Amino acid sequence: MTTIALSDWLLARINRDEATPLHRQLHEALLAAVLEGQLPAGRKLPSSRLLARELGVARNTVIDVYETLGAQGCLETRHGSGTFVADLSAERIAPPGPAPQPVAAPLAPRLSVRGEAVVKGARVFPRQWGAFMPGVPDVTEFPTRVWARLHNRHWNRAPPERLSYAPAGGLPALRVALAEHLRTARGVRCEPEQIVITTGIHQSIDLTARLLTDPGDTVWLEDPCYWGLRHSLQSLGLKLRPVPVDAEGLNWSGTRGAAPRFIVATPSHQYPLGMVMTLPRRQALLEQARAHGSWIVEDDYDSEFRYGTRPITSLQGLDRDGLVIYVGSLSKTLFPGLRMGYIVAPPSLAAAFAEGVAELYREGQLQQQAMLADFIAEGHFAAHIRRMRGLYSRRRQALLEAIHAEFGESLPVMGDNAGLHLVLSLPGLDDRAIAQAAVEAGVATRPLSSYYHGHGDGLSGLLLGYACVREEAIAPAFATLARVLRRFGA
Amino acid sequence: MTTIALSDWLLARINRDEATPLHRQLHEALLAAVLEGQLPAGRKLPSSRLLARELGVARNTVIDVYETLGAQGCLETRHGSGTFVADLSAERIAPPGPAPQPVAAPLAPRLSVRGEAVVKGARVFPRQWGAFMPGVPDVTEFPTRVWARLHNRHWNRAPPERLSYAPAGGLPALRVALAEHLRTARGVRCEPEQIVITTGIHQSIDLTARLLTDPGDTVWLEDPCYWGLRHSLQSLGLKLRPVPVDAEGLNWSGTRGAAPRFIVATPSHQYPLGMVMTLPRRQALLEQARAHGSWIVEDDYDSEFRYGTRPITSLQGLDRDGLVIYVGSLSKTLFPGLRMGYIVAPPSLAAAFAEGVAELYREGQLQQQAMLADFIAEGHFAAHIRRMRGLYSRRRQALLEAIHAEFGESLPVMGDNAGLHLVLSLPGLDDRAIAQAAVEAGVATRPLSSYYHGHGDGLSGLLLGYACVREEAIAPAFATLARVLRRFGA
Repeated sequence: MTTIALSDWLLARINRDEATPLHRQLHEALLAAVLEGQLPAGRKLPSSRLLARELGVARNTVIDVYETLGAQGCLETRHGSGTFVADLSAERIAPPGPAPQPVAAPLAPRLSVRGEAVVKGARVFPRQWGAFMPGVPDVTEFPTRVWARLHNRHWNRAPPERLSYAPAGGLPALRVALAEHLRTARGVRCEPEQIVITTGIHQSIDLTARLLTDPGDTVWLEDPCYWGLRHSLQSLGLKLRPVPVDAEGLNWSGTRGAAPRFIVATPSHQYPLGMVMTLPRRQALLEQARAHGSWIVEDDYDSEFRYGTRPITSLQGLDRDGLVIYVGSLSKTLFPGLRMGYIVAPPSLAAAFAEGVAELYREGQLQQQAMLADFIAEGHFAAHIRRMRGLYSRRRQALLEAIHAEFGESLPVMGDNAGLHLVLSLPGLDDRAIAQAAVEAGVATRPLSSYYHGHGDGLSGLLLGYACVREEAIAPAFATLARVLRRFGA
Repeated sequence: MTTIALSDWLLARINRDEATPLHRQLHEALLAAVLEGQLPAGRKLPSSRLLARELGVARNTVIDVYETLGAQGCLETRHGSGTFVADLSAERIAPPGPAPQPVAAPLAPRLSVRGEAVVKGARVFPRQWGAFMPGVPDVTEFPTRVWARLHNRHWNRAPPERLSYAPAGGLPALRVALAEHLRTARGVRCEPEQIVITTGIHQSIDLTARLLTDPGDTVWLEDPCYWGLRHSLQSLGLKLRPVPVDAEGLNWSGTRGAAPRFIVATPSHQYPLGMVMTLPRRQALLEQARAHGSWIVEDDYDSEFRYGTRPITSLQGLDRDGLVIYVGSLSKTLFPGLRMGYIVAPPSLAAAFAEGVAELYREGQLQQQAMLADFIAEGHFAAHIRRMRGLYSRRRQALLEAIHAEFGESLPVMGDNAGLHLVLSLPGLDDRAIAQAAVEAGVATRPLSSYYHGHGDGLSGLLLGYACVREEAIAPAFATLARVLRRFGA
């Protein structure tokens, strides 16, 4: 192909009136010429100056495109002699056409029954930030400079083992650091060998269920509870039995039927209502599990943040029989995007859990685990939690004051002594309609009733997350929400 | 507690003859004194000089311990006035005792049936590096400087949304970059909206199965195949039907029974045998899927590395009906510890897959996704693949020469035209015993027969990964393996 032939071929494929930028069009046309063999390997391309003149485009446009194709390995620049088409024989393939249209008669059923349940019941918000998104910590306060320093430290000398798959259970240094932290901060009785690093609560529960249950087994969940667990457990063929909570926590006195294979509970701070399970109820729960041969999964998701109340040791710390599987997350204490959590398995299950996580998910991210081990061992983790506790405490106070200023005592508040959110009770009001209207007014909240297993039999209220809202923004955002609430008769 | 009383209390708890270092013992004793309330909040501690003298230890030991406890938030140093016990009322808890002993009569069955299958069948090697570990790329060649530069770029301005949960499907910029790469390099027909970012093949298959199957449904797997998929699919209650492969790839002519909900295949490079599915077989497979209403999962795990053979476009690129779910991984092209893969969903399933991944796993790691998008868009990805292809090609050649030098033509080699490993056939020999003996001699391999579903009916051979072995180390390592092979009669 001569320069003239090439420029004609390219001109036929670019269109100045199209919305696609010219350099993008030229890039695609030249790429096609290379991939389709119009420009064979070794062919010298015209200079950017010459081709620009032939095409009537700016010379910089051609230079840009040559450089991009060079970075893609399609062109090679030989100093002093020009630009050549690279040998792509190991890569050349038929150029792709447009995406296929769905089949005329789509496969029926498109999704499976459990697949439909996941997608229809999807609760994940498109927005993950701002007033009053529950469960989201203030990630702008995360010490990114310290983190960047750890990045540099570990990426300057990355041993190959750290870039490969993780050993069973995770990086030993992180397991040591977490065990020490959990012993001190949460009264968890554990050795590093009991710690299993996961990507968070979803994987922790999935692993537990795959190792300890078979399809048809029963699992008890609190009612209400974190909605994210249900689809995962249902997908594994488990029967989920919702168990009510009262002021003392989980109350199974009215629950009949098969003994559960395991019981998921949030004793430190019931999710989402916020009560703390009392000591007598904890002892009864351990006794219940022992008598029925059930395991207990203790989800200790945000107990680091307590405001003005005496802390209470973990349920795991009271367990003398090795029945409690303790699970925690770094999403609330550090940042959710980190995707890191942990399980403290009872000694009798520790080896199986460590092997299971490696086998089922092939974990990695050892560089991040090494950074985190240093972050904990050097005291940054404890310092960050202390600082955030102070910050969240002030934001919580600001929200309580805003609620009081707008509504006095007429709307009771629950679960405000710990965590990242509180619950504003709305007895007799339609919390889902209110939450929908609030989102439209620019305030994200979640309706309490949607955390219940059944429909329409739960309490009505709104979960208000204050952790990710700056103190000065709380009153104005609540004023917006208050206007919505008044429209619904609050 | 006076200084004397404190030093007595501490002396009773430290033991110079113990293996635990003194500073560690002192740290634990002082921490216990704070946590158990022996040293109440606000109490001033003796100076490091004084306490060191009382305890008869080096002053630096005391300074170290004070500093560590300061970093843990247990002590506060007020300039000019000394060191004080911090107010831990929000944190104080009963100090943990030793880990619990397993219950006398352990829960029976300890693990569930599916849990036992996972742990008993665990195949993950404790070592993930060295000659001849299959499936592991040479991570020492990964451009860590470029990666560290991208770290700096993205951690210097980390927008809060990037530290929170991921939007459904993943970061838009990465979906755009991957779609472009896959169109160009693999002939995949896709728009960015069809791309779903996952943590790798395990999650990609898990998501597909949860969305498209119900318990009791049938899935076809190649026989032999990657062992990592079986436990995951069995855990979800699926019936796995092994389908044999011949020289042209998957051959279902003798397969009877229920139509599969989906078929998992590796058309570009059968795993682990290495043949390429022929074009007529590909067209027949698409026709089979269309006729039976099955989906096809195309696992294109290492097709970037081809040596001297014409590349062949992806099966997805031939699909005109939107039946193929294309899955890929960055474990082989970048590094396994990255934990990142992708699905190209057919247009009719794209929205459900994107919502499903967010709902079932709550993904994050958006900073890493942003780094990766730049890495691809700036040409580093294509350049790295090109460079590694050259490197692996030379290592493959070195291994072929070593095999030839030791055994001539007596041991046939299969599947060496692509990927990161080849298969050394060992007809009539016990490949599992040989692999075990090889590991003991310091050479990691995997026995081919263990990739088959049944027992004893598969071919015998060894998978030899050459990608993570430096060229000069290949002949010596193979010489070691050859000695083992000769002991078994090769």
